[in-house]
Amino acid sequence: MKAVGLIVEYNPFHNGHYYHIHSSKEKTKADVVVCVMSGYFLQRGEPALLPRRERTKMALEGGADVVVELPYIFSSQHASWFARGAVSILHHLGVDSLCFGSEHGDIQPFLELQSFLRDNKEQYNRYIKYYSSQGNSYPKAASLAFSALEPDHDWPDLTQPNNILGYHYIQAIYDLKSSIQPETIQRKQAGYHEEHMSDHHIASATSIRRSLTAGSKKLDDVAHTVPKTTLKQLESFVAAGNELYDWERYFPFLQAKALTMSVTQAASLYEANEGLHHRFLSCIQSHDSFHAFLKELKTKRYTWTRLQRLAVHFLTGTERKEVEYALRTGQADHIRLLGMNKKGQAYLNNIKKHLEIPLTYKLTKKKTAQQILDERAAKAYYIPLPPRERIQKWQEEFQFPPVIIREE
Amino acid sequence: MKAVGLIVEYNPFHNGHYYHIHSSKEKTKADVVVCVMSGYFLQRGEPALLPRRERTKMALEGGADVVVELPYIFSSQHASWFARGAVSILHHLGVDSLCFGSEHGDIQPFLELQSFLRDNKEQYNRYIKYYSSQGNSYPKAASLAFSALEPDHDWPDLTQPNNILGYHYIQAIYDLKSSIQPETIQRKQAGYHEEHMSDHHIASATSIRRSLTAGSKKLDDVAHTVPKTTLKQLESFVAAGNELYDWERYFPFLQAKALTMSVTQAASLYEANEGLHHRFLSCIQSHDSFHAFLKELKTKRYTWTRLQRLAVHFLTGTERKEVEYALRTGQADHIRLLGMNKKGQAYLNNIKKHLEIPLTYKLTKKKTAQQILDERAAKAYYIPLPPRERIQKWQEEFQFPPVIIREE
Repeated sequence: MKAVGLIVEYNPFHNGHYYHIHSSKEKTKADVVVCVMSGYFLQRGEPALLPRRERTKMALEGGADVVVELPYIFSSQHASWFARGAVSILHHLGVDSLCFGSEHGDIQPFLELQSFLRDNKEQYNRYIKYYSSQGNSYPKAASLAFSALEPDHDWPDLTQPNNILGYHYIQAIYDLKSSIQPETIQRKQAGYHEEHMSDHHIASATSIRRSLTAGSKKLDDVAHTVPKTTLKQLESFVAAGNELYDWERYFPFLQAKALTMSVTQAASLYEANEGLHHRFLSCIQSHDSFHAFLKELKTKRYTWTRLQRLAVHFLTGTERKEVEYALRTGQADHIRLLGMNKKGQAYLNNIKKHLEIPLTYKLTKKKTAQQILDERAAKAYYIPLPPRERIQKWQEEFQFPPVIIREE
Repeated sequence: MKAVGLIVEYNPFHNGHYYHIHSSKEKTKADVVVCVMSGYFLQRGEPALLPRRERTKMALEGGADVVVELPYIFSSQHASWFARGAVSILHHLGVDSLCFGSEHGDIQPFLELQSFLRDNKEQYNRYIKYYSSQGNSYPKAASLAFSALEPDHDWPDLTQPNNILGYHYIQAIYDLKSSIQPETIQRKQAGYHEEHMSDHHIASATSIRRSLTAGSKKLDDVAHTVPKTTLKQLESFVAAGNELYDWERYFPFLQAKALTMSVTQAASLYEANEGLHHRFLSCIQSHDSFHAFLKELKTKRYTWTRLQRLAVHFLTGTERKEVEYALRTGQADHIRLLGMNKKGQAYLNNIKKHLEIPLTYKLTKKKTAQQILDERAAKAYYIPLPPRERIQKWQEEFQFPPVIIREE
């Protein structure tokens, strides 16, 4: 069976994702779609709107055959580690190709860009260093460095977030010496960051989230931008008395936790570099919402996303030392199966005898370094709930078997 | 002016405390009563029912002339550090005597006991070590060691909490080479630990707290056991929409915080010795109330109080290293003035030119090691409130001047 791998967050699964799955399958002539999905906390440094289970169902009902988790230590990370973790999992799962959506839509320039940057690495890094020292954020510095190197060539635009991710996927395939074939399809219509709901059928996940968590929280507003199956999942989640997870629900705890740790404890957290934790602790004590806090924390030097990821690490208590240890092999140390259909099950049965890292859905007594962080992320994710409900969710989280969809 | 020092918690101030103030004054023929009062978290490892400001008013209205704070690092401590911190402050404030309530009521046996234990220190410590190794808690082992040393003498009973504190006050006076004269008065009626409200006019603070925080929370139930001035403070505190502070209000945060720290972070906390933090983290994840959690955590080896203090250090993020540093001089490094009346003010004016440590009510930019911990304790104390109210309390806490009562 020929498999295509997709790297996804599905926060939530929408029409654009449906299009991505089906065109990737068509483009790569794959029989099976394997998705690596971020778990509790996402690349932009945000809690997922819905738990993994609901998002896994959305994915399977939208056309995925296998859904596995991208461990916490890769999911709340800058693009290069995010890509490295996800590609390493797809590599272990033996997919033939990896197909990502991009603003650009053609794989050839990505491949050329890759070898161009490899050849000019030193010069490129010097430029990045220079532009960073001018007070630019890392992505901005990288983009400026790039223009300085080769201003006139028609490269993919690296200020576009999906192009950046694509670039790092290809880099990861190269670094891991994987035989995965990279492929890309052009994203339809809505930009990744587009905030206002479009009345077209494809809207960005950002604009959908905005509609779901802002004042009205009306599912009707997003109905035309998501598959019926997603709408059903959203409806039954809310009908069961659940609230979608967003940063504001975590703020009272984040504030309390940050202000009751020693400066040494704060300094030991991952991404608390360059004295940023001092600024974090000083800003958080005078605000009563996450948004107001982050607005004060924001400087030209750090992107909103970078600062949100730091907030995630405060929330989960992720220390620099733990991260260094968990990333020492440069790839995933386990694969957590979230869901599959019959075809996906057949695919996994076929490849699992050759697997080099454990494929599991339960937490065993003996945990890998990445699983220890996943467990803490799960604990942190349900903190907005009162203790009685937390306890139940924590138990379910590591006892429930993967989602299995019988019909395809 | 002759001054008597009292070491108090006033949680809340009741008729027994009123009796203590006035008989101490009489016994020592003092003009001025100087109280060192625990701030946010108390010796039994509990949050104070009411903030310091309200308890300071109760004290001044009940007969105290000066109220200063016992810093966090001494207030949530076993008896010997608690005593050492409090006595060092009274010593700096130049009081002539220290008068404590005791079950025994006569100072002579305390003084004899002190010199007896000094003379038999090695043997005493050997016994304690032996009884501890049998799985007894420290207070139990100390009491057994003591009986083993000299079974038949009429010493103060060291299984009684106020006798233990008294013993440590005298020890601290000795260690600090202070000229303070120790004195004791016999406690009236209610035992320190007595849980059920007596219908007499003197009840233990434990039983009063129990009545105030249990189901009914009726102030009427305690009215006959506290001075009218205390009742008025309690009434206006509740009338202003405040809730009394107790452990249950902190539990959702305590649980969340404990379960989102690394094992290394937990192990670095003060009193997280002998692997106790592992047990703490494992027990707390399956309970939805503080009481149920502590009941599971409790073993013969550790007293309830000792475990509650560990919970306080989890709450405030107090690390072993910080404590070692803050206690390196073996005494208080500042005195925080909470309140005074006219007579108290005159007394302070008189002694303040000789003070060897800062007497202050504000937090300055440059903080002492103990002030850093006090500030975090203040932050932790108000955590049960929503962010908007927290912010206000935090600001007030370090901006409001001391309570000043004009008439005496």
